[in-house]
This record gives sequence, C-alpha cells and structure tokens, in this order.
Amino acid sequence: MRNLTLLTDLYQLTMGQGYFNEKRHEEIAVFDLFFRPNKLITYSVAAGMEQAADYLENLHFSEDDLAYLRSLGLFSEDFLAYLKDLKFTGDVYAVREGEIVFPYEPILTVKAPMIQAQLVETALLTVINHQTLIASKASKICAAAGGGVMEFGLRRAQGADAGVYGARAAMIGGCVSTSNVYAGKLFDIPVSGTMAHSWVMNFPSELEAFRAYARSFPDACLLLVDTYDTLRSGLPHAIEVFNELRAAGHEPKGVRLDSGDLAYLSKEARKMLDKAGFPDAIVCASGDLDEYSIRSLKEQGAKIDSWGVGTKLITSADLPALGGVYKLAAVYENGREIPKIKLSDTAEKVTNPGFKEMYRLYDGKSGKAVADYIALADETVDGSAPLEIFHPVETWKRMKLENYTVRKLRAPLVLKGKRAMPRYPIPEIAEYRRAEYARFWEEYTRQDMPHIYKVDLSERLYRLKRELLESYGKGDARV
Amino acid sequence: MRNLTLLTDLYQLTMGQGYFNEKRHEEIAVFDLFFRPNKLITYSVAAGMEQAADYLENLHFSEDDLAYLRSLGLFSEDFLAYLKDLKFTGDVYAVREGEIVFPYEPILTVKAPMIQAQLVETALLTVINHQTLIASKASKICAAAGGGVMEFGLRRAQGADAGVYGARAAMIGGCVSTSNVYAGKLFDIPVSGTMAHSWVMNFPSELEAFRAYARSFPDACLLLVDTYDTLRSGLPHAIEVFNELRAAGHEPKGVRLDSGDLAYLSKEARKMLDKAGFPDAIVCASGDLDEYSIRSLKEQGAKIDSWGVGTKLITSADLPALGGVYKLAAVYENGREIPKIKLSDTAEKVTNPGFKEMYRLYDGKSGKAVADYIALADETVDGSAPLEIFHPVETWKRMKLENYTVRKLRAPLVLKGKRAMPRYPIPEIAEYRRAEYARFWEEYTRQDMPHIYKVDLSERLYRLKRELLESYGKGDARV
Repeated sequence: MRNLTLLTDLYQLTMGQGYFNEKRHEEIAVFDLFFRPNKLITYSVAAGMEQAADYLENLHFSEDDLAYLRSLGLFSEDFLAYLKDLKFTGDVYAVREGEIVFPYEPILTVKAPMIQAQLVETALLTVINHQTLIASKASKICAAAGGGVMEFGLRRAQGADAGVYGARAAMIGGCVSTSNVYAGKLFDIPVSGTMAHSWVMNFPSELEAFRAYARSFPDACLLLVDTYDTLRSGLPHAIEVFNELRAAGHEPKGVRLDSGDLAYLSKEARKMLDKAGFPDAIVCASGDLDEYSIRSLKEQGAKIDSWGVGTKLITSADLPALGGVYKLAAVYENGREIPKIKLSDTAEKVTNPGFKEMYRLYDGKSGKAVADYIALADETVDGSAPLEIFHPVETWKRMKLENYTVRKLRAPLVLKGKRAMPRYPIPEIAEYRRAEYARFWEEYTRQDMPHIYKVDLSERLYRLKRELLESYGKGDARV
Repeated sequence: MRNLTLLTDLYQLTMGQGYFNEKRHEEIAVFDLFFRPNKLITYSVAAGMEQAADYLENLHFSEDDLAYLRSLGLFSEDFLAYLKDLKFTGDVYAVREGEIVFPYEPILTVKAPMIQAQLVETALLTVINHQTLIASKASKICAAAGGGVMEFGLRRAQGADAGVYGARAAMIGGCVSTSNVYAGKLFDIPVSGTMAHSWVMNFPSELEAFRAYARSFPDACLLLVDTYDTLRSGLPHAIEVFNELRAAGHEPKGVRLDSGDLAYLSKEARKMLDKAGFPDAIVCASGDLDEYSIRSLKEQGAKIDSWGVGTKLITSADLPALGGVYKLAAVYENGREIPKIKLSDTAEKVTNPGFKEMYRLYDGKSGKAVADYIALADETVDGSAPLEIFHPVETWKRMKLENYTVRKLRAPLVLKGKRAMPRYPIPEIAEYRRAEYARFWEEYTRQDMPHIYKVDLSERLYRLKRELLESYGKGDARV
C-alpha cells in the first residue's frame, strides 16, 4: 500500500503546527463528514469507508516525508519531531458501505486529537467523495437498465485510482462486472470484455476476424458487429460463425453494438439472431450510455440484454464531484463537550452541532423507510415510544410515528486507531445496497422530481442548534 | 512505483491471446492516440507523457498478476508463459508535455508488436486523457485570471491519483501552486495554504484565532476572514493583528475570502487594507471558482490578487473527460506498411491512416502559428518550399504558404522500450506551455466562439485516405 500520509492540504499542517505551538493539538475534536443537496442528488450510496479505514490505520510520516516538510522552511524541528511519531489514535463512526444516504447526514464522524482530525480531513474527503459519487451514479444507471450493466470506463477515468476505485464503487452501486483487470484482481470482482474494432480491422476480412476469435474462445464468443456495417455485414458474419461454433459443439455468447442507432439496431439484431436459431445469444450495447440514454432506449423498445457503460459512469459526468464537506461539530474541554456550529447566511448551510448519532425509521406496516433521524449521541432512540418528527427548517411540518422500527445507521469504523468494522466482500456490500434500496418507496429514488426524503433532527439537537445560533445573533459569542 | 501492468481492459488480454494463438502477436502495428472535437475544446495542453513513459518502461506481469489471470480460466498456459517474459519493446513518438494541441492530432503514436500495442492502450489513454484534460482546464482558468491561480481541489478529486496528477497537470497549465502536499513532494512544485474555518471556530474568538496564527507564522500570515462576518468582524480583526505584527517587525501576507459576494467584498477589503496602511497585503479569493466566474468577477472590478480554485479545476467540471481515443493506423507485413483506416458514417470520425508525422507552421513575419500539418512519416516538410494547405473535409478551402517556418511537433518518447525523451522539470514544462501559447493569436484560444485552428493533411496523406475510403465504398476491401 502506498503511504498517503502527505495526501493532505498544506493548511492541515500549518494549522497543526499552530495548535502544537498553542499546546492545543491533543485536545479532542469531533468532525462530521456530510454532503449538501444538489439538483442531481436524490439519494447517494455510501462507499470508500474501507479505504478510509486502511488509510487511517497506516497513517505515519516517513523519514522522506519529514525531510520534505523540513525543506519547506515552514515547520519547527519540535513540530517535525512530533510528527515523526504521530499515528491516528482516534475513533471513527461511519455508515456501512452500500448504505443509502442523504444530504446533511453525518455519514462519517471523526473523534480524535485536533491535529489528527485535521490532518486526515482531506484524504477522507477525497476517498469518500469519490467512491460515494461513483457508487451513486452506478446505482442510478443500474436502476434505469434493470440490471446487466458492465463498467467499461477505465480509459476515460481521471487517473488510475479513479478507474480502479471507480470500478469498485460501480460494483457497489449495482454493476455486474468491470473491464478493469487491475480492479478485478484487487477487489475480486468479475471482469468482462472480448474484442475491439482494431481486432476486426486487423484481419483481411470481418468474417476471418470473427472466425479467429471463435477459434480462441469457442465458449466465450461475443462478437463486435459494428466495425463496417452492423446489419449487412456484422450480424450475417456473426451468425455464420455462430453456426460453425454450434456445429462444433459450442454455443455462442452473443454480439456487441457500439455505434449507430442502438434502439433500431438492437431490435433488428434480436430478430436476426432469433430467426437464425440463437435466441439465447445476447445483445450487448455500448457507446456513451448513461441512465438517461438507457431509459430512452428502453422506452423505444430496444432489445438490449447487457449494457457497457464507460465515460459517463466512471466520471459521473453530469455531477463530477459530490461536494462532501468535513465540519467541526464539537471540542472537549476538560472532558466536557463544547458543541460547535458553523454559521452561514443560508439556514441549510448552518451545520449541526455536537457529537451525534443517526437512525433510520421504518414504517411498521410496510417496512419502508419513513425518515432518517439525527440525534445527540446520548439520546435514546429505540422505537419503544411514539416519536414526533419535524422539518429541520420549516418546523411546523410535523409527523407523529407510532408503529415504526428504528435502525442505527452508523457503527464504529475505527476505534483507538484500529479498524473496528469487518471487511465486507464486494458482493455482500452490493447485496446490502440492493436490499436497503428496496426499502425505499420509488418516489424518493426516482430521477425526475423525486419526493425529498426526510432527514430530521431530534428535538434536543434542534434546540441546541437554535441556542447556539441565537447566542451568535445576540452577540454572546465573542467573534 | 506501483506496477500498473494489469491496468488494462480485459479485452486487450483476450485479443492478446487471440493474436498469440493465430501467431500474429508479434506483427508490428501502429496506433495513434488523439482526441475528437467537443464544444468546449478550443485547444488542449498535452500532459501525462512522463507517466506514460514510466509505465511503459516498467511494464511486466508479476507472478501474482499471472496467478490472477490463470484464475480467470480464460487463458492458456502457453499464453501465460509468454506474458511472464513480456516487456514493452516498441517505439513511441509524442509531443512534449505542455505542447498546445488540437483535435485529430496524433499526439502520441505507438509502433510495437501487436500484443504490446494493444495491452498498453488503456493505461496510455487513462494517463494522457486525464492529465491533458486538467492541464487544459488550468490553462483556461489561468488565462481568465491573468495569473496567481492556486490549485486547491484535492478533497474533490476523483481519488488520490486524480488529486496528485491533477495538481501536476494544473501546474503545467499555469497554476502557481497547489495545496496538495503529496504532489508538492512528488513533483517538487510549490505548495500553499494557511487555515480553515475550523481554526477560527476553535478559539474563543476570531481575534484570538488570528493572533494565535500570527504567533506561529509571523512572516506567512494570511488570514481567513469570512467565518463570521467579513466586513464587520473578519477584516477589522485581521487589520488589528496585522498592526500588531508590524509593531513586532513583521509584514502580513494578506486575507482570504471564501464566501459571499467576492466582487463586492474584495473591493471593500482592498479599501480597508489600503486605508489601514497595508497596500501590499493581498486579497485571495476561493469558493467554487472557474474561468467563467473569474472572468465575471474581474469584469465587476473585483480586487483579487490570488485565486484558489478547487472542484471545477480538479474535475474539469464542465468537461470531465477528454474523450481521447487510440486507433489502429497501420500494420506491417514482411516489413511493408499496410495503412489502416477506421470507417464511420461521419467524415470527421474516419481516422487518418499510416505512420505519420506532425508539424506546426508559423507565419514568417509575425511568428504566430498558422496551421498544424499532418503528413506521412516519409514526407519532407522543412519549410524550404511553398506549401499549399487545405481543409481536410472542405477541400476547396485552400491557402498557400510562402514565408513560413516549420517545427516538428513530436519526438521519440520511448525507443525499443527505453525512455528517449528527457524528464523535464515542471517549471520548464510550464514555461514551454506559456511561450508556445503566446505564439497563438487569441482568436484561436479564446473561450467564446473561437476561430477553429487549422489541422490539415498533406496532399499524399489526403489521397491515401481517399483511396482507402473508396476501396471500402467500392467493395474492394473484403469486409
């Protein structure tokens, strides 16, 4: 594993030296990681916690790192000596990967000595912003396709990690395979792919190219049929080779379309394959696909069994950053929690103070999710009593829950610097996402004009927030 | 260095086994890497060649990689044994990093045994697509700002590599520094950053927070002034601390604005700092900036000396993928070049066949770039004779050059598998970009409705392309 300890913003280290000089660097602080709403976010699929835990467990400055920091001329020898022995010793609470999450929710909370909590901000955001972004995009694409989505985006990813961890996140979001061999090996996820246009161009004729491929892969023969002319050349040649394969005792896999009108071509391909006696040969389509074009193709009756999705998935092209933030929620003075709030002119941008916990409330009858509920960590939320929830800004919007169940959404990810959550295999994470997604009414997860899922605050948390806001408004706080 | 040999699409390996079984895997092939036009691409800044060369020099399958491939059940032992000893032995020609490049231009060409040329396609595209994308975006942002752009995007980057190599590319594109400490160390580029809102929130008052920072960094004191109220609290407190610093013999650096109306606030901040006797204190601004918002702020008379640009630069938010492709241009049979062409219904999508070279033509009088010129590799283009250039599709658009100079745009990057181009330091690459950019009329590089810079084909290359196209049209080619 690469040592990513320096993967941080310089200001984390200048602030670190500042706290060190003020002898406040080991005061305990609480930071929440959450993201804000965006016109394209309906729900998100949490991901990246696994790599976040790896990073925290391995945090340490090498001699080389310290020599580099010394060379900047900004840091004192005392501070560099302190960094030499620094490890991450704090606690981290987080939702599981694959959890369905919403804006404002503290999907990860760090409780650690100030200097550590600041140092790790940047890398935690990088990893979780990225994987959550791609898992969410994949979930939307897979919902549109209804299954069979293959991740093909490596060549268009924003660097190697974007391709590799993007493939991982895509699987969490519901993809069935990736073309990325590196990701396949690293995460033990299925890989797929057969041939490019160059293969077809590289033989004297399309038919010879198909035959050569069938010779090498008689039982995994999926042919790319659009190099010259899909209906007049590609499909007839493919069927010819499929007949030869069958005569030799093999069944073909199918064909891939990568250009042209995929709705029309897929319907024609399906007819031709069926007529030729290959109803089980699949039609796979690729070429600049995303949830919008897939939905449109399906509306047009496209006969596509499997979707290769590249650029728009691996870059989350219509929303290339999730915009997650990491905000101070509390500090401890002599063991006493001092809640902190970040002011803003916009009510929605004011942060939620204090060390908190997060719950999901399900309707007792349908079993569907009703609302998420953020409370202070020392509150009891166990479903044993009726619960009145209300909108965190428009507080007159209230709802009383009587028949409901509660699930705590977060668990310790790291305790005293050591991983505390199991390493779940990717299929298990993907299945967790699928099952939890099914517990949401479609009204909340649909792409167009979704109903906004409720993320409410407990009465105590709400009151604490108001008190802190009012103390600033009245000038009680010495700003 | 990580071994990225498996960073490829599975189909490169299935095709590899196919060629191996056909005993054609060591036939020499030529592939061109280029990108297609897009409404947002005016020009691009080439980058990533350095990492591409590192990758090629280090290409090898580890025992672990081979064990993984074996586990897929797709590959023969003969083929795996062949892969065990595989190295990249080919030649690669490429433009220098920092070169200004345009759609359709073969900015990199691989001439190598078929199996190698295919295997490396994906990683070359990943690395060059990404860095070229970010260097180009940075160049546009820096052009709008007129200098002083700091790269702040790590936390929003699509993974660690996107942040680290994105910071590198941003410097090539004209940024003056990055907040990314890892990138600073790896590439020896300037790092910058001072404090976050959490620092200010973490002290009993804003004034105490500023004083504490000034104590630790008396000569690098840049204060974030928007935590509570920029004009009524942040700036007065900053000025108070600046006066204290000066009394102690230090000069402050300045202030940073991160929210609110940056045009208005920066003008007010400038006035307040000037009036207080700190005309040299800079005003730095950050917060969701890009070339559009920077241009708008400057039009409104914003007094901003330095720009911190994050999300929209590090993700190239309005164009998150460059869409580079890698297409077969020729194969060799018994040492004889067989040019190859990729057909398409769209004239612009038909590839340019053959092993080629690329030139830039400059006007002899102004020294400005007139057109780029793609010719077959064995043509002589040295400026010694008048040259007639013409539009590659609308061929009646012709221009005769008499007083002009010529520069070959590409050089060997890798020869026989070994790096052949020097490792240029980043400041040298950035300066190269700056100087070459200055040789383009602004008409070609401006953001809005740019004039399209000419990328023309030589008469011989054009004729070869036509002949190949017509041979397909006439059915000469056996498709």
